[in-house]
Amino acid sequence: MEVYEMEVKEIRIGDLCPATFINQKIDKIKESVRKGLAVNALSGGVDSSAVTVMGYIALGNRLKTYFIDTGLMREGEPQQVATYFEIMGIPIEIIDAQGRFFDALKGLTDPEEKREAITRTFYKDVFADLIRQSGARYLLQGTNYTDVEETVAGVKRQHNILEQLGINTEEQFGYRVIEPLVQLRKPAIREVAKALALPKAIYNRPPFPGPGLAIIVKGEVTPERVRIVRKATKIVEEVLSDTGAFQYLAILHEDKFTGVRQGKRDYGFQIEIRCWESADAKTGLPTRPSYDILDLLAEKIPTEVPGVVSVTYNITKKPPSTIEAE
Amino acid sequence: MEVYEMEVKEIRIGDLCPATFINQKIDKIKESVRKGLAVNALSGGVDSSAVTVMGYIALGNRLKTYFIDTGLMREGEPQQVATYFEIMGIPIEIIDAQGRFFDALKGLTDPEEKREAITRTFYKDVFADLIRQSGARYLLQGTNYTDVEETVAGVKRQHNILEQLGINTEEQFGYRVIEPLVQLRKPAIREVAKALALPKAIYNRPPFPGPGLAIIVKGEVTPERVRIVRKATKIVEEVLSDTGAFQYLAILHEDKFTGVRQGKRDYGFQIEIRCWESADAKTGLPTRPSYDILDLLAEKIPTEVPGVVSVTYNITKKPPSTIEAE
Repeated sequence: MEVYEMEVKEIRIGDLCPATFINQKIDKIKESVRKGLAVNALSGGVDSSAVTVMGYIALGNRLKTYFIDTGLMREGEPQQVATYFEIMGIPIEIIDAQGRFFDALKGLTDPEEKREAITRTFYKDVFADLIRQSGARYLLQGTNYTDVEETVAGVKRQHNILEQLGINTEEQFGYRVIEPLVQLRKPAIREVAKALALPKAIYNRPPFPGPGLAIIVKGEVTPERVRIVRKATKIVEEVLSDTGAFQYLAILHEDKFTGVRQGKRDYGFQIEIRCWESADAKTGLPTRPSYDILDLLAEKIPTEVPGVVSVTYNITKKPPSTIEAE
Repeated sequence: MEVYEMEVKEIRIGDLCPATFINQKIDKIKESVRKGLAVNALSGGVDSSAVTVMGYIALGNRLKTYFIDTGLMREGEPQQVATYFEIMGIPIEIIDAQGRFFDALKGLTDPEEKREAITRTFYKDVFADLIRQSGARYLLQGTNYTDVEETVAGVKRQHNILEQLGINTEEQFGYRVIEPLVQLRKPAIREVAKALALPKAIYNRPPFPGPGLAIIVKGEVTPERVRIVRKATKIVEEVLSDTGAFQYLAILHEDKFTGVRQGKRDYGFQIEIRCWESADAKTGLPTRPSYDILDLLAEKIPTEVPGVVSVTYNITKKPPSTIEAE
C-alpha cells in the first residue's frame, strides 16, 4: 500500500495536531515496512531530522540512518549533526562520499544539470550501494509540500521528488520511498520536530538547499569554490542568525569583478547575500537589515574569505526571484 | 612643447581658481595648436564637455568636435548632447560607429580586453580616420587626475591614458594628445564646467564609464545585452537622480538565475545596482537608500526590462571594490 496519495493534500498548520500526526505517521511507517528494513539519509535539516526520529521510533534498529558527507555541507556540519543524534541515542553512520560528488559535478554549470548530477549520485550511486549492503527495501525521506508543489509547477527539480515525477524508484533504484512529511510545509514541520523533542538548533534551523553548497555556487562546483562559499556562509549565518529571518544564504557568483587591494588591481569574486522573510518559501520578501549589519557583512567577507572583492544584497521578491540562488 | 608634464601634479579644489585655470588652459591650447587644426571627441560627460567648450573658445572653427555613437551610450544620449551644444552654438558632428564597436567586442569577455578593444576602435579605427579626413594633428581629451592615478597604480586601464603609458600617439596614431583637465579631480572639473556656463545637466551629471554600457555588461557585449543594461540604467538614473549620490549604475551580470513567473520557471538575468557616495572616485561608500527606494527598483526593473529576474544592491566599499562594475 502507498504511504501517501499521488494527489498530495496539504495539512495546514492550523489543522495540525502534531502528536496525532506523529502517531499516525509512525503507524504508517510500521505498516509499510512491516518486518523489513528501512534506511534514511539525514542531512541535519529539520525535515530529515524529524523523519529520522519518527523512523527510529517506528522501527528501532531496523532503521539504518546514514549521514552522507557530500563535501557540499556547511562548516562543521557532519560533526555537529552526529553529536546531536548521539545525544538522542539514535545511531547514525557518516559516509564520506566527497570524491564521488565532486567527480559527478565536474564541468557542469547549468543548475538543473547540477541538481540532476547530485540526485543521481546521491540515490543511484552512493545510497543505492548502501541500501544494497543493508538489504533494506524502504527509504524514508523528508520531502515536504513546497517541494512537491514547485516540482509539479516546473519551477525547479527538487532532489527528492522521484515518485511524483513518475519515476519508479523500486524498478530503477531497487527501493521504495516513504515520505511522511509530504503534506506539511516548513512551519508545520517545525511543530512536528518540536513535538518530537528535537533540539531547538534543529527545529529552528533556517532551511538550507538540499543539494547543499553546490546550489549556491554559480558555475562549476569545485572543492575550491565550495571552500569559498562555505566560509561566506559561515559569516552570513553568524551575522544574520539573530534576525529571526526565514532563510539566509551566501551565493558565490561566477562573474568576476575588478577590485583593488593595497592600491593594486585584484580581479576577484562576488558574494551575493539573500535574507528572506517568508512563511513557507512559496513567496518571499527580502528582509530589511540595518545598513550597519550590511556594512559588517561587506567588511568581514572580503577580509576573511580569500579572493572575494565584492558583496551585494538581494532586493528582489519571490516571485520573480526564487529563494535559493541558482 | 608638452602641454602637461609627464609627472602630473594635482591641483586640489581648494587651490583652484576656475577662471584663471580656464584662461591658462585656453592659452596653452592656442600655444600648442597654433594655426593648426584640432579635433576632440565629446561624450557628453562633464570632462569632455568642459574640454569642448575650452577648445572652442581657444580655436573656434579650427576645433572639430565629434560625438561618436559607439552603440554603447545611454538611452537618448546622442540626441540630448547634440541639443545642448546646438543651443550653446558649438558645432558637433555625430558619427554612427555602432557596427565597428560591436564587431570589435565580439567574443570578448575579459574587462581589460573589452577596454582595450574599445580604445583601439575608438582611437585607431574611428577617430584616426576622422582625424586623417580633417587634417588635424591635435586631439583634445578630458582625462582627469583620477584616471591617471588609477592607470599608473595598475588598477584599471582608462581608455584615454595613452601618453602616460608611454604610447606615442603621434607615431602610432598620427596625432598629438592635449589633456587640459589632467590635474583635476571630478569635483574641481565640475567647478570649471560651471564657470564655463555649461548647463547644470552636464556639470552635475553623475560620472559614467568612458567605454559606456560595455563596461557594465559582464561577459560578451552584444547589441541585445546592451539594450537590457540600457533600460536598467534608465530606471536606475530616474529613481536615484534625486539622491545627490556621486554615481549610480546598473550592471548586467553574465550569471543567470532561476526565477519564477506565473508559477513557471524562468531562467533569467541579474542586475546589480551600485550607488556611491564619493568625493573623487578614489574611495567610495555605497549610499544607504531607504528600502522603499530599493523596493521600487526591484519592482520596476524585472517588470520593465525583459529577461531580468533578480536585482541586487552593492554593499561593498571601494576599496576593496571598484566604483564601476567590471
